Amino acid sequence: MTSPANLRARILSVGNELTMGQTVDTNSAYLAQQLAGVGIETIGHETVGDNQPAIVQALRRAAELADVVIVSGGLGPTPDDVTRQALAEAMGAPLELDEASLANIEAYFRKRSRTMTPSNRVQAMVPKGAEPLPNTRGTAPGIAAKLGEAQVFVLPGVPYEMRAMFEFAVAPRLPAGRGVILHRIVRLFGTGESNFAEMLRDLLTDAGPLVVGTTVAAGLVSIRVHSRAETHEQAERQAQKRIEQILQCVGERALGVGEEATMESAVGALLRKTGKTLATAESCTGGLVGQMMTAVPGASEYYLGGVVSYADRVKEEQLGVPGDVLRQHGAVSEPVAKAMAIGVRERLGADYGIAITGIAGPAGGTDEKPVGLVYTALAGPNGTAVEKHLLSGDRPMIRLRAALAALNPLRLQLLKQ
Amino acid sequence: MTSPANLRARILSVGNELTMGQTVDTNSAYLAQQLAGVGIETIGHETVGDNQPAIVQALRRAAELADVVIVSGGLGPTPDDVTRQALAEAMGAPLELDEASLANIEAYFRKRSRTMTPSNRVQAMVPKGAEPLPNTRGTAPGIAAKLGEAQVFVLPGVPYEMRAMFEFAVAPRLPAGRGVILHRIVRLFGTGESNFAEMLRDLLTDAGPLVVGTTVAAGLVSIRVHSRAETHEQAERQAQKRIEQILQCVGERALGVGEEATMESAVGALLRKTGKTLATAESCTGGLVGQMMTAVPGASEYYLGGVVSYADRVKEEQLGVPGDVLRQHGAVSEPVAKAMAIGVRERLGADYGIAITGIAGPAGGTDEKPVGLVYTALAGPNGTAVEKHLLSGDRPMIRLRAALAALNPLRLQLLKQ
Repeated sequence: MTSPANLRARILSVGNELTMGQTVDTNSAYLAQQLAGVGIETIGHETVGDNQPAIVQALRRAAELADVVIVSGGLGPTPDDVTRQALAEAMGAPLELDEASLANIEAYFRKRSRTMTPSNRVQAMVPKGAEPLPNTRGTAPGIAAKLGEAQVFVLPGVPYEMRAMFEFAVAPRLPAGRGVILHRIVRLFGTGESNFAEMLRDLLTDAGPLVVGTTVAAGLVSIRVHSRAETHEQAERQAQKRIEQILQCVGERALGVGEEATMESAVGALLRKTGKTLATAESCTGGLVGQMMTAVPGASEYYLGGVVSYADRVKEEQLGVPGDVLRQHGAVSEPVAKAMAIGVRERLGADYGIAITGIAGPAGGTDEKPVGLVYTALAGPNGTAVEKHLLSGDRPMIRLRAALAALNPLRLQLLKQ
Repeated sequence: MTSPANLRARILSVGNELTMGQTVDTNSAYLAQQLAGVGIETIGHETVGDNQPAIVQALRRAAELADVVIVSGGLGPTPDDVTRQALAEAMGAPLELDEASLANIEAYFRKRSRTMTPSNRVQAMVPKGAEPLPNTRGTAPGIAAKLGEAQVFVLPGVPYEMRAMFEFAVAPRLPAGRGVILHRIVRLFGTGESNFAEMLRDLLTDAGPLVVGTTVAAGLVSIRVHSRAETHEQAERQAQKRIEQILQCVGERALGVGEEATMESAVGALLRKTGKTLATAESCTGGLVGQMMTAVPGASEYYLGGVVSYADRVKEEQLGVPGDVLRQHGAVSEPVAKAMAIGVRERLGADYGIAITGIAGPAGGTDEKPVGLVYTALAGPNGTAVEKHLLSGDRPMIRLRAALAALNPLRLQLLKQ
């Protein structure tokens, strides 16, 4: 136990699908982020299976180590869901039916014109002395309880339900942490993690009241700044100062600041700022670049659309790639990438056209054109530039790297405007 | 400790970006799956920050609880990476430079025409008595060591590097577990988890030597069968029997069996089997359906391509949606969805055309056309059918559900052939 002046949390995830590795736990990351925002530091996560004694043990250990324990999973209607029973056992309290929760569950089914199954009835049970938490997005209510000195919150495992319950029912009930821990991220693209680390060596080691680290994910390098202070303003100010130093070091390799800063958000913001439009012609990425660009809300201001030209005939007929160029050079070639970019730019009437053609594997590679060979092209008002890449990774990684490689030249060109 | 006849593993993930929730841990799920395949049961996962005392404590606890401990993360070149130091401390052994590892790191940089930075040198250090594990995909070697009675393997945190090292260096060194635990999944689409659970009530509760559970992810319900037996054949036979019973209960709601069974793989397999081709016209999903269809290797046999018609002008010019229909009914309407599907089918010369138009939010909704309103259309040899959906969720969830809703009618139609 720590003093209330410095609150610590432990996050517990329950489910055989998690321990056995059939589902990736995304709840713990979400919860840790939310807790940090109110000054509660997450000291660890633990995952256990749908096994009542194991859950009881993990609950008791978490309640000893931390002030706040957040549990997700095991509240479903099926017999393998035993988290509510485990909490009751850990508390030494019987389970009781909560009439209001039962009414909510019944209303949930009525609203959807579905019949409530008997197995949903168990979801209205809470340990005596605990408080049910309403579920606005599903049937299972959550539970707020006291276990030893710790505050325990039990939430459903389905992320979409869990997040709403955290926001509406848990956040207002959390004890106030002392100070705030702010996380800020600078997203980078263009060289490897260790090169960025060398570039930023002094800023990484002499961090002062900050913790600065680097990670790699989804083809991008992130510099993470963790800033702890008494007030939000202080934490923000010291984080901001460090971020400015980082940005100076990395120059145009920075995509932006914040969790939302991605290649597609950076390109989108620059297109909006310059009033330019984009169209895409995709072969091996099959629509990935379009999907990335339109994942950013408001993309209709600058993204017109594109052609997924997976078959060669579509490259010819929908993009105007000459048939003899396709036959002479093959679909994965510099002239085809160039013709695709020019074709989609002209046909869709966009300022810029981006094209990708390549071999994503696992099959289809030859000695001359191996898996990972990708051509990207950018057609714009000043002509068309093609780049050749030899990308490593499996099929999803090659496709992602190809999409990033295709968008980056547009970003660099728009930065100069 | 358990007897060697029943090996148990604990997985440890290291990194502030994990405890603080800035990165989702996908390594633990991968490792648990791999371990189960060789009969080693993962009893829990724990995540700790880049903090040497915390890592030492977690390592010691894991070595007490389990026979095999797999650690990932904290082997990078930057000063926040302290897992190798923590392992040395837990073992009570000094760190020593491994010349062969150093040579490998130098070769890695040479091959890429990059200069090795001094910070990479620390990556060649291993605790005395431990064995370095070669990294075929990055700079940081892993470590194999003995801690108490447990076998400990330390791997890099980057999934792409970690997976290759597990496969090539860890798997051959694992102790033999007794028996096998097989995981099989049946993927379902078409109704909610609790409805599936009712449908399968007897199979879920009377599981015999099997553990059967349900989970929901990415818009699909999964029935998970865990089958433990002495031999692979026995485990396979008892899992297979249960899967056949499940398939009989759910009928055409089953997308398929196995981790790879998705909506897009089910549709792809049926297109291949029937020799039919598909083209897609996407508005609010921006290329997501094309990206999903082409995520399946070999999709070029049946997926021709598509048009991402994000702007209305692209719907008119590239898909032939009449301008007056767009003006009269708006882009999100039944007649526009229909015209998009017919247009892409005809223009790309496909057997089937799928179209999606809708409002993914968060902005753009009105009382008449709220966020979540999506029309999907399927044009085929027997005409065109349009469906109206009111989908819930945030922007990514609405887009995913729209893509699934658009593909499912094609799957059902192909199943009848």
